[in-house]
Amino acid sequence: MTSLNFNFGGTDTRVFIQDELPSLSDILPIMGRDKRYHVICDENTKPYADEIGASVPICLSGSGEKEKNWDSIKKILKAACAAELGRDDIFIGIGGGVVSDICAFAASIYMRGARLALVSTTLLGMADAALGGKTGIDLFGIKNLAGTFYPARAVWMPLSTLKTLPPSQFKSGLAEIIKSVILDETIDENTAFEELSKGNAAVRLEKIVLAAVKLKGRIVEADPRETGTERAKLNLGHTFGHALEAAAGLGKITHGEAVAWGIVRACELGLALGITPPERAHAITHLLQNLGYETGAPHPALLSGGSGQPLARKFLNALNSDKKRIAGSLRFIIPAQKGAVIVPVSAEKMPLVQEIALGSLTEFLRI
Amino acid sequence: MTSLNFNFGGTDTRVFIQDELPSLSDILPIMGRDKRYHVICDENTKPYADEIGASVPICLSGSGEKEKNWDSIKKILKAACAAELGRDDIFIGIGGGVVSDICAFAASIYMRGARLALVSTTLLGMADAALGGKTGIDLFGIKNLAGTFYPARAVWMPLSTLKTLPPSQFKSGLAEIIKSVILDETIDENTAFEELSKGNAAVRLEKIVLAAVKLKGRIVEADPRETGTERAKLNLGHTFGHALEAAAGLGKITHGEAVAWGIVRACELGLALGITPPERAHAITHLLQNLGYETGAPHPALLSGGSGQPLARKFLNALNSDKKRIAGSLRFIIPAQKGAVIVPVSAEKMPLVQEIALGSLTEFLRI
Repeated sequence: MTSLNFNFGGTDTRVFIQDELPSLSDILPIMGRDKRYHVICDENTKPYADEIGASVPICLSGSGEKEKNWDSIKKILKAACAAELGRDDIFIGIGGGVVSDICAFAASIYMRGARLALVSTTLLGMADAALGGKTGIDLFGIKNLAGTFYPARAVWMPLSTLKTLPPSQFKSGLAEIIKSVILDETIDENTAFEELSKGNAAVRLEKIVLAAVKLKGRIVEADPRETGTERAKLNLGHTFGHALEAAAGLGKITHGEAVAWGIVRACELGLALGITPPERAHAITHLLQNLGYETGAPHPALLSGGSGQPLARKFLNALNSDKKRIAGSLRFIIPAQKGAVIVPVSAEKMPLVQEIALGSLTEFLRI
Repeated sequence: MTSLNFNFGGTDTRVFIQDELPSLSDILPIMGRDKRYHVICDENTKPYADEIGASVPICLSGSGEKEKNWDSIKKILKAACAAELGRDDIFIGIGGGVVSDICAFAASIYMRGARLALVSTTLLGMADAALGGKTGIDLFGIKNLAGTFYPARAVWMPLSTLKTLPPSQFKSGLAEIIKSVILDETIDENTAFEELSKGNAAVRLEKIVLAAVKLKGRIVEADPRETGTERAKLNLGHTFGHALEAAAGLGKITHGEAVAWGIVRACELGLALGITPPERAHAITHLLQNLGYETGAPHPALLSGGSGQPLARKFLNALNSDKKRIAGSLRFIIPAQKGAVIVPVSAEKMPLVQEIALGSLTEFLRI
């Protein structure tokens, strides 16, 4: 077991990377022994909730992105009321990125903030969602439109849960791991890419999760509320990716699929702007292609069910409503010589961005 | 004009107590000149929004406690999206406590936190709601069940707006002012009570608002998220008061009416426990009675429409779901020799609390 401690804007977060699922007798001494608690899961992680020892876990009605709505939050808050939880009591979320986001948002607003523990059971959760305090639900078709910064006090990452993860879920998480490798200037990228290109079987889970957690922890400690520029870098691939997810219809393609596609778009934008070295852009694209991610533009999901015209517009609208917009300019995270840099892109340069993201669909935007 | 600066848990809050309503050209230089903004009001404060210069204010569908729901939040968030606000842009709320609570909650979760300015137009807002970052909406009949801590960056308190306030609204705010006087150990209570007992006309608004703001600012700076005991003292009268509001039906009696009644209950509990000096309990009760607040138990609102039996139960349930409960014990704020103290009341002592709150209705709880 590896244990790490972070402080995110005043909240201490302990992370436990270990083989096995923790039990309530591992969780409660860390979170507060005399406290009440309730356990939140989705239909996939219900068996884990049972294994952990939760008597009556609160189960979301389904699983996946479509659960990230106010109804889920209300269900969790209502259960907390029914269990007579006070603001000092504990919300324990068991699941992947979606459960983390929902459970953490609910905890952050319950009586203005209850204690939060997360047990992350997917690679996406471990590599990204469970750490660093971003919470959220989707609204009006926009990803994470409503949310808070609310770090968990403790996060467990039981690696054994990854072994039964469906391949599509593993692949979704792997995209965040690759993002992390690209951002991490302390890692030998070529060696890491070589290892990752060998596929799931060869991946040393503890090593890649630990590296991603360390990188993210370091960045979020320096900029917990993304007021500076450091934390924004973690959005590499996300500006394009979130717009793709929204345009395709939230939940239609996995978050990691969208991020991988977005990373390639960021490389192409970086190439066009002379920021990303061609050999690096090539190596990144090649790795993602080899691992089976869609790398071309337009993304096939934008072509489904018609000419692509309405989805191209939807994509553009979603891109323009990105949270990272400042004073009218969109900000893109672009792989540079090393790591990545943040590049504001003003309205004049948007045709270039559109061309890179939408390819042949761009023509529809001129109409 | 008096200007005060506070720092609430890392957020700088500037407060401007002045005669006139500020205009957008006062607000925007403080909040960020190059930012987009939108203005939120209710049907009562729509004229102020127009006067301030808001082109298309977002108007809540009505006014009062019943607006503190998720639909109001969604309306504000949707308007923010439509106005293409980014997370660095500005929410300006104009109104009393309800508008403050709603607008601040919406700002706190929009893209995980937009900039917030409040123009407080009621005595309740100035004395309490607009300062210190508590935001919230009501859920499942529980006041402020969902909310955040999210201080505004700037709060304007234009005293001229108090002159046109309906008497019931003024009286509601006055209860928070009296609470503030009771808590404030730096004030000569007898002199203050004497002044307040003369009624609205004699009250020097700037003086009482300034004193309440200073007290609250000092307390919240010391304990911004109510993790210690200091901030909890601001809940004097609120534990009983919130339960009364919930039992009567949220919005049926004003917040201040409920708080005043709750302060008297806290005095009686303090008398029974030997904590509140009899002469102080008497002076407080006498002042509130003189000003026309209901001070008896049970509160008449609990008798309306029947025997009082269902409302007595509802009151007790609401009391038990209080946010200040820790490890099963309710915590009451009780006037002491000076100021107030926090007293945990365990289950065994609840019959005493019930007797004090419900008087003759207590018999129904035994059934």
